[in-house]
Amino acid sequence: MQFGANEDFKRYPRDFKRDEGLLKKEKVDLLFYPSVKEIYSEDYKTYVEVTELSSILCGKSRPGHFRGVTTVVLKLFNIIKPDIAVFGEKDYQQAVIIQKMVKDLNLDIKIIIGPIVREKDGLAISSRNIYLSPEERVSATILYQSLKWARNSFYKENIKSPEYMLNQMRQMIEAKGGMVDYIAIVDKNDFSPVKFIKKDDRILLAVFFGKTRLIDNIAI
Amino acid sequence: MQFGANEDFKRYPRDFKRDEGLLKKEKVDLLFYPSVKEIYSEDYKTYVEVTELSSILCGKSRPGHFRGVTTVVLKLFNIIKPDIAVFGEKDYQQAVIIQKMVKDLNLDIKIIIGPIVREKDGLAISSRNIYLSPEERVSATILYQSLKWARNSFYKENIKSPEYMLNQMRQMIEAKGGMVDYIAIVDKNDFSPVKFIKKDDRILLAVFFGKTRLIDNIAI
Repeated sequence: MQFGANEDFKRYPRDFKRDEGLLKKEKVDLLFYPSVKEIYSEDYKTYVEVTELSSILCGKSRPGHFRGVTTVVLKLFNIIKPDIAVFGEKDYQQAVIIQKMVKDLNLDIKIIIGPIVREKDGLAISSRNIYLSPEERVSATILYQSLKWARNSFYKENIKSPEYMLNQMRQMIEAKGGMVDYIAIVDKNDFSPVKFIKKDDRILLAVFFGKTRLIDNIAI
Repeated sequence: MQFGANEDFKRYPRDFKRDEGLLKKEKVDLLFYPSVKEIYSEDYKTYVEVTELSSILCGKSRPGHFRGVTTVVLKLFNIIKPDIAVFGEKDYQQAVIIQKMVKDLNLDIKIIIGPIVREKDGLAISSRNIYLSPEERVSATILYQSLKWARNSFYKENIKSPEYMLNQMRQMIEAKGGMVDYIAIVDKNDFSPVKFIKKDDRILLAVFFGKTRLIDNIAI
């Protein structure tokens, strides 16, 4: 059995009771919670991959990650046979990859992208935030601040140079102790880097605070 | 757009009118005949692969071939939403790979394997047979003869050595001018080579007569 995202999966914070409680509050009718064994047989061999989109940005830092995501999502789609499925905008690359898979594989499923939910100070809500130290938690607010700064500098100061913007953002983030994995300003559909920033381009970033890797993004 | 089997696809003999006529005779209700453009958009990116099984035997001679097969079959499954689908036993590796994909991806489709249909002299019927010269057409009957010889030598003479059997088959085929791509005696499910031949193992072969590559197989 190959399982690219396996190591990553093990480190992923899981709290079934808490998740179950949150879903009950939302009056969810059905919660499907299969074991890894039920999903991946010992002689499992079949993988689906959205080429090109899966090997860049987060895919570069986490080889095999998106192959694992698309494979398990396709399996869940085939088991559940949903009419609609909702994915979070915080994992923007994941959402675009899944939309592309659905289109390419002729799946009859409507993908809805749920907007990013943020803490009061702007930090994108993530299960990983619990790993941040109190100091890191404060510093991490720079991510959304830097994204808003970039968006504003396009609309208010007419800045169109991705190099300038990326440099400024990197300096802002590093000044708070963030270790940049990547910051990119890309086409919203195919993730190709843009030469001049325009409306609807997407800024994506992944930054370590200590050992915790956080991601965030914003639309220009 | 990537398209591993593209070159191969172009060389594949296609006769729509003839196929349509044959299907009408069988009282087929619906014939789905999409164009390549409808199936593969210009920015097509998503591929499904059954690892391990797809890179050996025919997959070794035709890199990317089975990835193309599984991808288009999955797309057709998603478009048609069939309850059952029939694949021919002549393409035994293809049939096993598709069965594995269906199982691994939790597809709710029953795969039926249609038995090999042969000419009176034993040659497996294939659209490629039209490419054989009259002499090659006669020589090609050695394929099924050699497979039957191997099966008989197991049951009647208790021969269990794959090396011996493969050597004998190779000699029989080469004596008729066949250029062996591969002959293999393998486990019927995972295609691993067997050390001692037993019931239900599978003999698979691919042989060129002139420029025409023919395949055939038999169960022990």
